[in-house]
Amino acid sequence: MCPVATNLADLVMSRCDELAACSEDSGCITRRFLTAPMQEVHDRLGGWMRQAGLQIRVDNGGNLIGRRHSEGATRTLIVGSHLDTVPGGGRYDGVLGVLLGLAVAENLSESQLPFHLDIIGFSEEEGVRYSKPYLGSSAVAGVFLPEWLERVDDQGVTMREAIAGFGLDPDNIATAAYSREEVVGYVEAHLEQGPVLEDAGAPLGVVSGIAGQSRLRLEFRGEAGHAGTTPMLDRCDALAMAAEFVGEVRSLGRQTAGLRATVGRVEVTPNATNVIPGRVELSLDVRHVEDSVREQAVNDLLVAGKRIVNAVNGSFVLLERTAQQAVKVDGNMSELLAKSISRCGHEPLQLVSGAGHDAVVMAQRFPIAMLFLRHPGGVSHHPDERVERDDVAVAIEVMSQFATRLAETFASGRHI
Amino acid sequence: MCPVATNLADLVMSRCDELAACSEDSGCITRRFLTAPMQEVHDRLGGWMRQAGLQIRVDNGGNLIGRRHSEGATRTLIVGSHLDTVPGGGRYDGVLGVLLGLAVAENLSESQLPFHLDIIGFSEEEGVRYSKPYLGSSAVAGVFLPEWLERVDDQGVTMREAIAGFGLDPDNIATAAYSREEVVGYVEAHLEQGPVLEDAGAPLGVVSGIAGQSRLRLEFRGEAGHAGTTPMLDRCDALAMAAEFVGEVRSLGRQTAGLRATVGRVEVTPNATNVIPGRVELSLDVRHVEDSVREQAVNDLLVAGKRIVNAVNGSFVLLERTAQQAVKVDGNMSELLAKSISRCGHEPLQLVSGAGHDAVVMAQRFPIAMLFLRHPGGVSHHPDERVERDDVAVAIEVMSQFATRLAETFASGRHI
Repeated sequence: MCPVATNLADLVMSRCDELAACSEDSGCITRRFLTAPMQEVHDRLGGWMRQAGLQIRVDNGGNLIGRRHSEGATRTLIVGSHLDTVPGGGRYDGVLGVLLGLAVAENLSESQLPFHLDIIGFSEEEGVRYSKPYLGSSAVAGVFLPEWLERVDDQGVTMREAIAGFGLDPDNIATAAYSREEVVGYVEAHLEQGPVLEDAGAPLGVVSGIAGQSRLRLEFRGEAGHAGTTPMLDRCDALAMAAEFVGEVRSLGRQTAGLRATVGRVEVTPNATNVIPGRVELSLDVRHVEDSVREQAVNDLLVAGKRIVNAVNGSFVLLERTAQQAVKVDGNMSELLAKSISRCGHEPLQLVSGAGHDAVVMAQRFPIAMLFLRHPGGVSHHPDERVERDDVAVAIEVMSQFATRLAETFASGRHI
Repeated sequence: MCPVATNLADLVMSRCDELAACSEDSGCITRRFLTAPMQEVHDRLGGWMRQAGLQIRVDNGGNLIGRRHSEGATRTLIVGSHLDTVPGGGRYDGVLGVLLGLAVAENLSESQLPFHLDIIGFSEEEGVRYSKPYLGSSAVAGVFLPEWLERVDDQGVTMREAIAGFGLDPDNIATAAYSREEVVGYVEAHLEQGPVLEDAGAPLGVVSGIAGQSRLRLEFRGEAGHAGTTPMLDRCDALAMAAEFVGEVRSLGRQTAGLRATVGRVEVTPNATNVIPGRVELSLDVRHVEDSVREQAVNDLLVAGKRIVNAVNGSFVLLERTAQQAVKVDGNMSELLAKSISRCGHEPLQLVSGAGHDAVVMAQRFPIAMLFLRHPGGVSHHPDERVERDDVAVAIEVMSQFATRLAETFASGRHI
């Protein structure tokens, strides 16, 4: 390992610790959109950016941006992630990607790049304060809808008031947007939040795509009845139907390569020990990097649900169905990330992102690529979230390599 | 149908309607232990009993008792059921059995019986006010525990205060008990609260036994995880385990004659759409008229639960296990009930009671028999509870026959 990268990795780790102290709650890490602890984060992170020679600004979406200016450049490579957390979250989710960007800028020191390098700390990704995720990246990608400003948090504060209270102009969020033409691409480094890299013994992986997601609310309707007096064969037990469905979800998930299918929420009515359940509402979350595979899986499960209820004269109701398409990564940038990993002496593992990230929104306007870091224990959105210092060092080397090689493709005219 | 029985059945139906108006809530029927509406019921029902020539009293357990006195008799046949309701209950559950007893006393008119006939309206069976069922029958059976007097209702009123407030003596509840020797037997007529008689097209059935019941609280423990990032084969999904268990409960219930096995309550943790469930707590209710069959079923299900969790390295925890033994009915009295049904021109169907009744407690001291009435729609503990006037008329005839024939066995010296 290059000692410079190791030193920078130590710095990243200690900065993550320092920013973890900026929290709405003492004792755990909670940092929602534009709260006072976010201002603290801006103050500290902005200070480090300035020391690294970056030009800093906060856009009207509340994003902190540090630019490594390149004389004469007209285009910009963006590296970023988010600075907010879920309530009681971890110290690396989001923040790590921003600090890695800063470390890369520090690592590149005097090297000339043919593009600006903008390190963005997005103001909001988790969707906690206003039940709306990706606020920061939506502003940067130019897809922020003004109607969101009227949303109210649990204290009755509108998003408009929160933005104005942070000293920004909610009526000029559009100014935060980068144009399609000026952006070379967006690269985000993030904890994997899953076990794939750890199981493979790989420090890093290149994201081959971000899974699309279907979210459904379903209800099985049977007939409530006395648990002691209703013979088994006369029952139309909504929970027995729902249980059979959960089994189908698991089997289909296991049989279909790359599918993630989950029933996470269940509400039983009347939910009493001695009453046969009359109704069960449940959630279904299905993800796959190929939209057609995901859609087929959802349709197969809806057919299975129908079959299950028909056997006992129950009914199966689709209460809600929403979907988010899969996101494609930019082939050239992803290949360059993979080559950089190889050059650093590691296998360039490819893996799908099953979770959403700011890159999902950025992809609506810009080419994107994502680098995942191994996530020991795989525990995310939790104080036990971990990352290895040595993996962080490799990530700094890989991303620095990436920027340098991308610059070479510019110089050789191969990059459009 | 004998016109006298039909007229008495009309009277029973209209009296059920009248007593339904005695409620703590307007708009639905709620009548808990010794509340003001129970006093109203005592006033009305006591009036009808007096008109029928019965001697009335209220014992210190709050039970209303009307005695059809037989000159020179030393023993007593008790016919009864309960006068309390669940919140938002039906107009027949309990009350019907008491009014049927009164109708039988009216139907017998001048006939001489060699025993007193006591019609008891029990003060409490549902266990709503003090989370303790069978208060009234416990007093009559002599199994009321003085420590129950210190229980507190949701308004902070102790049971002792409630009893004293009703003008009774909580320190002399023991005086409510009948001795084993003086009681010929206890007969209770009740709505079936299930579909067996309706499915068989029979107005009445004789209870062959009251099912014993096992109640368990169980927990499946897996590992919570991100629904998008955790591969299906790496999961230890507590809900998938619990669902498999619910399937086992249903299959075993279907395969075992007379078994009722129900999972009625489920609590999922964390119960979020995008999180693989880490824990699921559920209830298991298993009933059978043979204790050994019930216990074997519970043990088989515990083995199945263990097998399910072992397949995915989860764990299965027995949080609580309680049981109530099955109750045997008196063979002679039950046979006499069956013969009386035959004599009235109906098939004397035998069926198990899956629900508990005052007869469960009375059986601790006295011979018992139960008569079930067909329950159209099978909806109980609900305003839609129904019974057919004609079935009520048959029940009056059958129970009158029963009393007359029981008297004959006395006269012939065949009854001990």
